[in-house]
Formats: sequence, C-alpha cells, structure tokens
Amino acid sequence: MQLDPVITAQIVQTNGDWRPASEIAQAVAAKKISALAVTEAALARIAQHNPVLNAFTDVTADRARATAKALDAAIAAGQSVGPLAGVPFAVKNLFDVTGLPTRAGSKINRDRPPSIRDATLVERMEAAGAVLVGALNMGEYAYDFTGENIHDGPSRNPHDVTRMTGGSSGGSGGAVGGSLVPLALGSDTNGSIRVPSSFCGIFGLKPTYGRLSRARSFPFVASFDHLGPFARSVEDLALSYDAMQGPDAEDAACSTRAIESVTALLGQDIGSLRIAAAGGYFRKNLFPEAQEAVARVTKALGVTRDIELPEVARARSAAYVISTVEGASLHLDRLRTRPNDFDPAVRDRLLAGAMVPAPLVDRAQKFRRWYRTKVLALFKDVDVIIAPATPCIAPKLGQATFVLDGVELPVRANIGIHTQPISFIGLPVVAVPVPLDPMPIGVQIIAAPWREDIALRVAYALERAGVVAAPRAKGF
Amino acid sequence: MQLDPVITAQIVQTNGDWRPASEIAQAVAAKKISALAVTEAALARIAQHNPVLNAFTDVTADRARATAKALDAAIAAGQSVGPLAGVPFAVKNLFDVTGLPTRAGSKINRDRPPSIRDATLVERMEAAGAVLVGALNMGEYAYDFTGENIHDGPSRNPHDVTRMTGGSSGGSGGAVGGSLVPLALGSDTNGSIRVPSSFCGIFGLKPTYGRLSRARSFPFVASFDHLGPFARSVEDLALSYDAMQGPDAEDAACSTRAIESVTALLGQDIGSLRIAAAGGYFRKNLFPEAQEAVARVTKALGVTRDIELPEVARARSAAYVISTVEGASLHLDRLRTRPNDFDPAVRDRLLAGAMVPAPLVDRAQKFRRWYRTKVLALFKDVDVIIAPATPCIAPKLGQATFVLDGVELPVRANIGIHTQPISFIGLPVVAVPVPLDPMPIGVQIIAAPWREDIALRVAYALERAGVVAAPRAKGF
Repeated sequence: MQLDPVITAQIVQTNGDWRPASEIAQAVAAKKISALAVTEAALARIAQHNPVLNAFTDVTADRARATAKALDAAIAAGQSVGPLAGVPFAVKNLFDVTGLPTRAGSKINRDRPPSIRDATLVERMEAAGAVLVGALNMGEYAYDFTGENIHDGPSRNPHDVTRMTGGSSGGSGGAVGGSLVPLALGSDTNGSIRVPSSFCGIFGLKPTYGRLSRARSFPFVASFDHLGPFARSVEDLALSYDAMQGPDAEDAACSTRAIESVTALLGQDIGSLRIAAAGGYFRKNLFPEAQEAVARVTKALGVTRDIELPEVARARSAAYVISTVEGASLHLDRLRTRPNDFDPAVRDRLLAGAMVPAPLVDRAQKFRRWYRTKVLALFKDVDVIIAPATPCIAPKLGQATFVLDGVELPVRANIGIHTQPISFIGLPVVAVPVPLDPMPIGVQIIAAPWREDIALRVAYALERAGVVAAPRAKGF
Repeated sequence: MQLDPVITAQIVQTNGDWRPASEIAQAVAAKKISALAVTEAALARIAQHNPVLNAFTDVTADRARATAKALDAAIAAGQSVGPLAGVPFAVKNLFDVTGLPTRAGSKINRDRPPSIRDATLVERMEAAGAVLVGALNMGEYAYDFTGENIHDGPSRNPHDVTRMTGGSSGGSGGAVGGSLVPLALGSDTNGSIRVPSSFCGIFGLKPTYGRLSRARSFPFVASFDHLGPFARSVEDLALSYDAMQGPDAEDAACSTRAIESVTALLGQDIGSLRIAAAGGYFRKNLFPEAQEAVARVTKALGVTRDIELPEVARARSAAYVISTVEGASLHLDRLRTRPNDFDPAVRDRLLAGAMVPAPLVDRAQKFRRWYRTKVLALFKDVDVIIAPATPCIAPKLGQATFVLDGVELPVRANIGIHTQPISFIGLPVVAVPVPLDPMPIGVQIIAAPWREDIALRVAYALERAGVVAAPRAKGF
C-alpha cells in the first residue's frame, strides 16, 4: 500500500529514523496518527529493506494490522492504552509467537507445531500497546556470536552490509540498527544482546538473571539465559524494560521479583555514583576502536581508576564449559537423531560438549560460585563497572580469524571475550553504542544484581552528553 | 584405672547398656556422679571392647578427661551446665577434631595437618555439656555402605562380629550399637547414617538438607551431604539434635534456619498424622526380615495405604551419577597424584565418575529437581512415609553378593537401594531399629523438609509401644 508521506514523516523521521517510542505512543493515544499507520510504516520499511538486511524470518503483517486496528478502536472508544501504544517491535525467533513454530534459528525446530500462545514478554509488550510485526533471524540455537545463519542466510549489518551484525540476536541488531522497527527483543547467554548492540550501533539491555521472564522462549543455557530489549535510545530501552518486568510463575528463575520501574528515574543525577573501568583482562585483546570507545565513555564519566575482577580468564573458560555442556544436554536427542540438520559449526561444538567429563563442569560450577561472590564484593566499592562490549567493530561476513594482541584467533569463538565473564554470573549490563565512523562499537555499563536502574541512568547521562548514540545507518 | 562398680552401675547399667543421656546429664548436674566418672566408664568400655569392634580410630582420652574435669569444676562452682552434661560421644573421623588430621577414612588424609578447630557440631555438642571421647572408623571418603575400611580394618557389628556394621558411618554404628558410647555423630549422603543404624540396631537421624552445619567436616557430595546423630533412644537422638541445631554462616546450606527444638514435643499425640507406606519400588528387593520390620511398624501405626513415589529407580540412578561425579570432582587431584593410596573399590568408582559425560549429569540434575517437586507434592496428602532402611540384615564381612528378587547383585552397590532415593532430595529421616532376633534391622520414618519433629514423634510413639528399640548387643 502507498503511505501518506505526511503521516509517515510524523512517525518515521524524514531521514528514515524512528521517533522515540514514547512520542509515537503519545501521538497514537492522542489520535494524531493511527496505530495502523505506524504499523504500515514499519511493514513498509521491512518490505523495502529486509531483502538486503535479512533481519526478519517471519513478518506477521496480518496479526500486526489486526492488533493495530484493535488498538485504534480502543482509543476511539475512549479506552486508555499503554505507554507503548502503537509502537512496532519484533522478536528473535526463539520467542514463542502464536501460530509460528519457534525455530530458534534452526532447521530442525521448523518441524515443531506452531506455538499456541505468545511468550510472556510478547504478551507484556502488547499489553503495553506495542505491536508485534515479526520474528527475527538469529544464530542457530543461539550458540553464535556472528549472526551468520546457514539455513536462513546471514543477517547483515545496516552500517555496512558486507559485515556481520553479531549474534546470536543478529536480526534484532539489524532490525533496530537499520531502523526497520524502533524496538526488538533478543536473548543473551554469553553476549548475544551486547554483541549485536555493539556491532549494529544500538542500545541493548541484558537484565539481571531472573529479572525478565523466559516463559515460552526456547532456551540455550538455562542457568544463564537472559531475555532483553534493543532500542535506539535509552528511554526506549527503559520503557520496554519497564513494560516487561514482573514476576512470572512460569519461569522459576523469575517467580518473585517485584516490578522496579526505571523510566521515570533516568534523569536522576549520577554524580554520586562510584564508577570504575574494568582493568587487567578487560584492557587487553582490544582493537583501537574498542579502546577508543571505552576511553570516550570513561572520560565523559570522569572515571579515574581501574578495578580488577579476579580470575577473569578462568571465568570465561568456565562460562564456555558450562555453555557447551548445558547446550549439549538440551540438544542431546536432536544430536542423536538429526545431526546432519544442524549447522556443522554448532553441532560440532555441541558434540564436544556431550563428551566433556562431568567433574570438570562440577569444578567450573564451584569456580562460578566463588567468582560470583568475589565480583559481588567489588560492588561494595563501586556502583558501575565500564568494560568493552566487543574487541572490535563488526568483522566482515565470513571472516574466519582476527589478530588479538598479536595472536591470530578464530573470530566466532572470541567475539565474546569481554561479555562472557559478566553474563554467566547474571549481572545487569546496558550496552551503549559509541558512534565511531564508519562503524559504531559498544561499551558495557555493568551494575550489581537488580540495579538495572543504575546502569540505565549512566547510559542516559552518556546519551544526553552526546557520547553515545545510535547512529543512522546510511541507505536505510 | 579401676572404676568404682557402684558408680559405673549408676551410669552404665549392669547389663552393659547406657542410661539415657538426659538421666546421665541430670545425675552429673546434681553431683550424684562426676562427669569424669562417666568419661572413665566410656573409656573403659572402649578399651575393653574396641579391639574387637574396631569402631574407634582415635581415642581422645586426655582431652575427654580435661573436658570432664572442667565440667565438674563448673558444677562445683555452681555454674549451670547443658542438657548433655557429662554425656560421652564420639564422631565419625570426617569431623574436624582439634589436634587430629581429619582422615575421612582415608590413608591420604593422614598427611593433612592436624585440625586447629573442632567441627561446628562438635563445638555445639560440647557447649551442651557432652564430652568427646574419640573419632570413629568409617568407609573411605564416605563412599561406602559396608563399613569395611581397608586401611583401618572393618568396623564389626556388635550383634555379630562376623557381620558388617554398614557404612559409611560404620564406627558410629558399632560404637553406639555396642554401647561403647551412648551418642555418636555421623554423615549421610546416600544412606551412611541410616544403613549402620539399620544393621547395628540403633536410632539414627538424617536431618533435612541444610539443617545441621557441616562446617569443618570433610565433604563427599556437598549438594546432599548431611550430618546427624546416632543414639540408643529417640529422646537421646532428639536431645543431641536439639543441641546441634542453629544457623552457621560457615556452611552456606545452613546459614539461616532458626532452631526448632523437638525434644519437648516428642510425647505429643500422633493420632492426627497421615501416615502411608512407600509402595511400588519400596515393596521390592526386600529380604523377609526387611518385610517383617516394615510390617511391624506399619501395623503398629495403623497404616492402611501405600503411596507411590514417582520414578524411584531413576531417582536412585540420578543419585548415583551425581555422587560419583561430585565425588570425582572433589578427589580429582588425589586421583591424579596418589591413585594407589586409595581403596581400589573407592578409587575405581571415582575414576569412573571422572569420565562420566557432563550432559548426563545435567540431565540427572534436571530430573532431580523434577523428582523433588513431585515428592514434595505428596506431602500435601501425607505427613509421614514409611520405607525400609536396608534390603537385608547386616551381611557377612567380605560378602560380595546377595540375591534380590531372584537377581544376584553386588552387596556394596545395593545396600542403599532404599535410602538413596530419599537423601538426594534432602528429606529428613529417622531410622528406627526393629529388634528382630538375632539381628536387628531398620525402617525409615520419612517426613517433609524441616519436619524432623514429625518423624521423631512417630519414632517416639513406636518406641513407647515397644515396636522399635535398640537391642543390647550380647557380649558387649
């Protein structure tokens, strides 16, 4: 359909970027534009650009239009609507979406029956008025840092379509980085929200382990799988995060935590926060762009000291071992019955995981508890830790190796070198984009458990200071 | 030294059995006898009978006399003393005892430095007035159901010294079963309190996981290691249990639970309790004596129905797998450096555990959570579950196999067939002795987590009804 250019300009800015979710929602609630028009704008952008970006594996156009029309009808009837009224969003295809098989990036899962109920977080986003427009490309079974899916083709980086989006939430990064939608959801086990945020130049939130319900999503490593949002501004990130909070009996890890809204707190002064940069391990294995990004953030925040996390290399090893073993456990039957339907790069790591001697994992878990205790103790002295999100800007699609501190290493296995030691102990992290030219790169703002508010406030201050921002992807 | 026979008769009954701990303590507190005289009586019994029973690996005579004298001095000075004043006890040699290396039944640990502080439970027993007289024989590293230690020799069953005590708390069973001491402490991972209780005809309490502190004891499978008391009566069991309760920051599993004393509640009517027998799995693999013991207990309690625990055989398998793997993880360095200093029967199972593929353990842990949830749900319908403690009376020392339901099976691996499915989910159990002649055999009184009070009250009612009792071991 042909869109009214005036309406489109109101919701998608003339440079192709989205206005903030809060403004879209206010305009929709005030009947300045219809939710349907916003939805059509998103569908039009997807139709125009997805053939190149390959971010979407499913576009739920009929559902989106029906949702939008119902929302418009409710508004016309004078009913109140939520803070995300009419805001389009899409989800990594490991979220259950009614009527679709939850493929989780795999070929095998396409044989599953269609889901009969949405994931909890989809339900909560829609309860807040957001409009689901589709499901997004991802690395197979989320065991991926590249966004290169051999079944669906690679998701492409909107800032340079010859480059990776990062993964495993690659389509989420590409869809928001390319402004196809203003919001997306993804998952992060070892870095799968933070890595595509970094490579695609957007904001991403990996909340505290247990904060957001994972009910009716496809798991990878249940003991440190997290779900979270991507957005083009901190306020949009906070709005979607607030919309999704709250306990859910269907995810045992998320059964009790009360809602602690943050959007209204974003503007609070951060002058009293004690902020340190992660030293040692986190100062190594960095390309110049990553060093520059960390330097800009720490300078803007007036950070004067490094803090050392203990035994970080061992922590990363432990995260690796636990991931491959829990992943192998999850996929054991599929590995036995359908080995040739996996991406070989995923299958072979899972097969290796299937043969790891159990006492090594027991030791990794013991170490994990020790490490978590030690890292939590650091938060007696600091409120926020700054660390690089990725060692480099987005590599080229298909790039097999890069050189870190003089050593040639496989790209796929080492993109998460700075994210893995954080997530397997469940700390909340906001990944903020530093808009280097031509390619952006992210920085991790890490807080103590349950203190997403602090990480988001720091991110907001950086955004207002112009240090971090989601840059427009030229040509999209 | 020569004991005054009158004094000895006051504390050790003329038939060689101990008077109840509460009576000993009252007599000591009332200066009717001295704590030192009681201690000497215990040391004399140990000196007389331990050469045959081989229950003690260390007799802490000097310490015991010093403790007793200090107690007597305190009493003489008019100070109040605890409810176990002057009562002798001994501990499995995996408890830290100041000045002794904590050998945990091994040869290797004898090279450890002497402990510099007692285990928490030893401290609490002594704070209640009890007097430690020694450390007790046990199966190597607690990975044992027989009580046959190749380094120290087997502990021997006081009811028939050609038979096993059961293990791994074999010396604890023999020392209390043979009335060398009225109280002992042991540990139970898969049955190591309940099995020697059964074979030696005494009462044993495996509390809820997390109830009694394990600080400064040598572990085996930390996720389901339990410490607990052995006694010759339910009241003595409850008295020692009450003396040891309370949170301890030095055992993470036992850091918060408040004291819930039970001794004063023992006599409460049990008429309102819903009691069922464990059916299915627990009705199988039983020698006639075990069937008879369960029948006597259920008849006395008026039990009219069986309750089915779900997937019990899988539960036992899961307990096995987790035990061997956590054990292997604990001992990995020792297996690498000193393989020939292990009991081969222990070493080879640990080596097998070192090679179990980790995803199988991950699945065992997932099953364990499922099973625990299902079993806990049963306690909506019942308060107490009755089950056999062992499939048989004490086997002969060195006996390699027995026939269960027509299948010849290794003894060592199958003694715990009815205990393993209970402990790895942490339920509290009182093992009660049914005094069959010539050999006693035990029954498990199982309650919901934290309801030791219920299990102890049922045991007390059975004891008062004359159905269960710790029989005198002839000749000791």
